[in-house]
Amino acid sequence: MLAVTCPRDRLLPSEDLGASWRAVRPRPPGIHLDSAASSRQSHRALEAAAHHARHESELGGYVAEATADDLLQQGRSVLGGLVGMAAADVAFVESAQAALVALLSGWRLPAGSRVACLPGEYAPNVAQLRAAGLRPEPLPVDDLGRADVDAVARLLADAPPRFVHLTHIGSHRGLLQPARETAALCREAGVPLVLDAAQSLGHVDVDLGADVVYGTSRKWLAGPRGVGILFARPAIAAQLVPVLPEPEGVPPLRAFESGEAHVAGRIGLVVAVGEHLAAGPDQVRERLAALGRATRELLDGVAGWQVVEPVEEPTATTTLRAPDGVDVLETRTRLLTEHGIVLSAIGPERAPGEMTSPVLRVSPHLDATIEDLEALAAAL
Amino acid sequence: MLAVTCPRDRLLPSEDLGASWRAVRPRPPGIHLDSAASSRQSHRALEAAAHHARHESELGGYVAEATADDLLQQGRSVLGGLVGMAAADVAFVESAQAALVALLSGWRLPAGSRVACLPGEYAPNVAQLRAAGLRPEPLPVDDLGRADVDAVARLLADAPPRFVHLTHIGSHRGLLQPARETAALCREAGVPLVLDAAQSLGHVDVDLGADVVYGTSRKWLAGPRGVGILFARPAIAAQLVPVLPEPEGVPPLRAFESGEAHVAGRIGLVVAVGEHLAAGPDQVRERLAALGRATRELLDGVAGWQVVEPVEEPTATTTLRAPDGVDVLETRTRLLTEHGIVLSAIGPERAPGEMTSPVLRVSPHLDATIEDLEALAAAL
Repeated sequence: MLAVTCPRDRLLPSEDLGASWRAVRPRPPGIHLDSAASSRQSHRALEAAAHHARHESELGGYVAEATADDLLQQGRSVLGGLVGMAAADVAFVESAQAALVALLSGWRLPAGSRVACLPGEYAPNVAQLRAAGLRPEPLPVDDLGRADVDAVARLLADAPPRFVHLTHIGSHRGLLQPARETAALCREAGVPLVLDAAQSLGHVDVDLGADVVYGTSRKWLAGPRGVGILFARPAIAAQLVPVLPEPEGVPPLRAFESGEAHVAGRIGLVVAVGEHLAAGPDQVRERLAALGRATRELLDGVAGWQVVEPVEEPTATTTLRAPDGVDVLETRTRLLTEHGIVLSAIGPERAPGEMTSPVLRVSPHLDATIEDLEALAAAL
Repeated sequence: MLAVTCPRDRLLPSEDLGASWRAVRPRPPGIHLDSAASSRQSHRALEAAAHHARHESELGGYVAEATADDLLQQGRSVLGGLVGMAAADVAFVESAQAALVALLSGWRLPAGSRVACLPGEYAPNVAQLRAAGLRPEPLPVDDLGRADVDAVARLLADAPPRFVHLTHIGSHRGLLQPARETAALCREAGVPLVLDAAQSLGHVDVDLGADVVYGTSRKWLAGPRGVGILFARPAIAAQLVPVLPEPEGVPPLRAFESGEAHVAGRIGLVVAVGEHLAAGPDQVRERLAALGRATRELLDGVAGWQVVEPVEEPTATTTLRAPDGVDVLETRTRLLTEHGIVLSAIGPERAPGEMTSPVLRVSPHLDATIEDLEALAAAL
């Protein structure tokens, strides 16, 4: 599926898409390669949120929200479409983490219920599972931390957990997990699949048959901070017990949507999702994967830095292990202050079940160029 | 303390304050009398939030946040000052409700612990207390629903609850609860006082000696939606168990601040609080109380509507019971659509322990005028 790309050509698929993505957002003072942390909003998304906030000030917060009702519902519908669900299956919350907490607080599973998740699971997720009284147990993985589909099938047959929690792409490693295969196995086994799509929504295909999906606005969808999304199919939503139920006729999941919220940010996200769709999700994925590949080809071995991911991994996120004697956090600071290059240092506490040393994370969005990656290679 | 005000004079204390409050915010298309729901932000607060969001898009979300670190810490310090606490005692969250949830989830009190709260407690608060396994029991009150201080003293002596939860001003009734007296009694009895200041922060004095205070940005402080504040004294913060602890040296309450958040909104709130302080909290309180008094004097008995609060109650919030045969929700809609007057209809489900019928809630902020209130009287 991927176009064969050679960085020496200095060309990536859909260079026009890169250029148009770049043209509609504020000009960065440096080089932004940090979309796995927080992406760059477009002028239109920024303006939509600012305009709604002004509208709130003119009309009152709740009158303004009522005038935006149709737009918000359209947003739920379009977001739902990204994961193969309907508007009724979508709840706006504050962050991916808030979505997980909302799910777990509503599900009220018996204490000690077993949940299978990756050994490299995001530490705050593990902490939330434990805080909900659940018992996280490792999914079988290969040496890189990718779920082993055959072994997962055996686990589901031999000792099915209460649910599988799969983080689709890690925040500490640009590895794409076999979510479609896992979803199919889970469906067969009657075990719900909860997919953490914080790093995958807007990045790769997320319409894979999971029962619950949750994600965030600010990363690959390039929406505002302070907005997250919880998606749950009706069969799961029916199992959730809200603190305060919704009136008759309202979709049950809506009880998990936060009522008092950054509504302006939700408006901004709806605009950002529109831009994602206008860009063409397939083209977006193709270019992001090509950027990831180019990053790995360009950076592996540079000044002794080692790329963790397979070069062909179809994601835009690359992590690098430091050469002996080089401090990752100091390198991140040096790149920012001396070269204006924005990226992240990820410590092992992020995924203590898998990481043994910190990594430098490079995560370009569509507007990045080969020149940006070359500048990083030179600065390393 | 209150200036004697007669609506027939068409003048309220600090008319210059009203005019300057009005001058610095977007011009409303109608008459906004709904600050107990959500207030009108100033141009500067709106611009500060929009500017930070743009900054996030240029620099990356976390680089932008780091550049705003000092401003955010200054904000914690100033907000803490409003309730007599320090910056280390302040955590930014998403809403007042999120603050209560953060407190209860961290406190982890034994199931069945008794909590005293008003019979007219806000229904979502009662639901959260129950969801945390606590047992809400009524504080003794008078006919209007105001805590009876002597009876509270007896309760604290005879059967002290695990903590007292006092909603300082209700969202369904503009009654000011005796929080200072309750705080003193609680301190004597060694019972923590948790003060819900969602309706009182920026409205009346909240520096009263409570152990925990929580509130919101969007009401009387006139900050953005999607930002709330949890304040807790060190002795309480030390009892809270976070899902993920903060590193050594960070104030323990910071673990309850949401990391992934509407940071731009927090910046907007810091600007709004600065404007509140610049206006002079005493003058703000005096004018808000005078607006409440004028509202009650002007509206009581008009077309059969009956004011619930005592005329002299030192708050800006007034509620009205409908005359026989008049629907409150329809009246709210009619006032909005035919007269451009923004206010709220409050159903009895808001405070089912106290309300028996819906009320119309009028809650002017500083920019309201006698003419605005007269227009409401004429429209009723």
